[in-house]
Amino acid sequence: MSNLQVLLVAGTHGNEINAPWVFDQWKQKEDLIDKCGLKVVSVIGNPLAFEQGKRYLHRDLNRSFSKDLLNSENHNDLEVSRARQLLALYGPNGQNASQIAIDFHSTTACMGSSLVIYGRRPVDLAIVSLIQNRIGLPVYLHEGNPSQKGFLVEAWPCGFVVEIGPVPQGSLNSRIIQQTFQALKICLEEISKSIHSQSCFPDKLIVHRHLKSIDYPRDSSGEPIAYIHGDLEGRDWQPIRNGYPLFEYISGEKVRLSDNSFSDVVFPVFINEAAYAEKNIAMSFTKKEVWRFDDCWKDAFYRLINS
Amino acid sequence: MSNLQVLLVAGTHGNEINAPWVFDQWKQKEDLIDKCGLKVVSVIGNPLAFEQGKRYLHRDLNRSFSKDLLNSENHNDLEVSRARQLLALYGPNGQNASQIAIDFHSTTACMGSSLVIYGRRPVDLAIVSLIQNRIGLPVYLHEGNPSQKGFLVEAWPCGFVVEIGPVPQGSLNSRIIQQTFQALKICLEEISKSIHSQSCFPDKLIVHRHLKSIDYPRDSSGEPIAYIHGDLEGRDWQPIRNGYPLFEYISGEKVRLSDNSFSDVVFPVFINEAAYAEKNIAMSFTKKEVWRFDDCWKDAFYRLINS
Repeated sequence: MSNLQVLLVAGTHGNEINAPWVFDQWKQKEDLIDKCGLKVVSVIGNPLAFEQGKRYLHRDLNRSFSKDLLNSENHNDLEVSRARQLLALYGPNGQNASQIAIDFHSTTACMGSSLVIYGRRPVDLAIVSLIQNRIGLPVYLHEGNPSQKGFLVEAWPCGFVVEIGPVPQGSLNSRIIQQTFQALKICLEEISKSIHSQSCFPDKLIVHRHLKSIDYPRDSSGEPIAYIHGDLEGRDWQPIRNGYPLFEYISGEKVRLSDNSFSDVVFPVFINEAAYAEKNIAMSFTKKEVWRFDDCWKDAFYRLINS
Repeated sequence: MSNLQVLLVAGTHGNEINAPWVFDQWKQKEDLIDKCGLKVVSVIGNPLAFEQGKRYLHRDLNRSFSKDLLNSENHNDLEVSRARQLLALYGPNGQNASQIAIDFHSTTACMGSSLVIYGRRPVDLAIVSLIQNRIGLPVYLHEGNPSQKGFLVEAWPCGFVVEIGPVPQGSLNSRIIQQTFQALKICLEEISKSIHSQSCFPDKLIVHRHLKSIDYPRDSSGEPIAYIHGDLEGRDWQPIRNGYPLFEYISGEKVRLSDNSFSDVVFPVFINEAAYAEKNIAMSFTKKEVWRFDDCWKDAFYRLINS
């Protein structure tokens, strides 16, 4: 039997309250979601921020898992301490070691349900292939963005984010709860099938590969001076070309997509995510790519779950 | 010539950022919105909370204008101090006295644009009649709710709230900005016309009169144990009857509207407003009433603007 343990995290951002609510309901009624024979630990990522209904207290916990921060003696922000604590408890070498981490988030952007991976670890590509093959969720491959690093799931051997929207921060929502519930159920089912060598890997994986993020137009004091154009609002995952309006000034003047490196359509994501304004991100652009499924992903995944 | 001055407030809740943004654009470009010859002061209600992107720091500024709080020596919360300061500066007897206050808010609920008045002051009924007659906005008459008091506009001789949604907190949004801009423009035009005795008062006013608010179902520790039913989400201003599903448990069990005092349809508003969970309000119910326009409202309004 596999020694695999799956770490489920909700409330890594304390104002994303739907997944923590589902976890809490599950704790009260264990048969709500079948663990499918898996060893599972579920945890609130940032309980102090969650209690206060804030995204974070000192710094974004989901950017606090970089080696620099974890190893630095000068960083004792609450969230860096919490990152160290989570690793000591549930990290791959922790007291109660987990090998796979799944981190449940919500967004104010019209993203629907999606999976986010950080870089191209074969095990991550394998597991999101299984889930995409099962229920068709888009996969956002976040890579090549040195200003954004230290994501929680990167600190585990295998891991990904489940991102669901749109929902305002601090708001329970029927649709988001149902989608969180379904995604959680499917993740456990697919991991369990792998342990029993019953996985159905696809022959391809569709990824939305991160190209770049752009900021709102701002004035010299850093204040935004234009807003997301009404035509673009809510068009996450939908292709746009150079010339498409991105921002609008109150005068009606438009800022259009104009990037010489974009020869074809690009797919915007996280359009107007409320929490990203402070990170100078108005939206990110991705390229949709169809990748051949590589058996080495599967091999790496099987090695992990049977280790 | 009238000595009337109109106080325009935005950011009374610091995380409602669209109206403050419009005010800021207007400050930078004075001809963006025609003042129509009026004396106008525009101000950020809660600048400290606004800087931090929070609804408030110590207490809700828009519940801090009750006489009890303003006169109490024991209450020195930042927001009570700010309430006193706003009154000293722009109150009806302040240094730079204003007689009409218009307070611009946003909501996460699917309210569209609406006007909110507190009680039945003839001057308030007159001014919202003018605006409703011009652009048809619904009027929410908030009264008879002793647990919610001390609203900003109540401290001025005449005043109302412009409430626009849905928009997540902390998020600039094209639609909300346009609607704020339009509402602001229309308010100034209508007040200006009154001064020049060119107002076109209607013969009736449609009000959505507050009946009661209800809370989420909660457990003994105060945590919500059910969420707004998916069928109700987004149905603000739409009539429902006893039997309509209000909440849903994760088990699928429903809580239906069942109130013997509701013999006919009621109109829910502020459904699932994110900021109201802490106030134990999941939604409010209103009764839609058509009131005959009373000339005494107009007389009171004319007395005020010509005083």
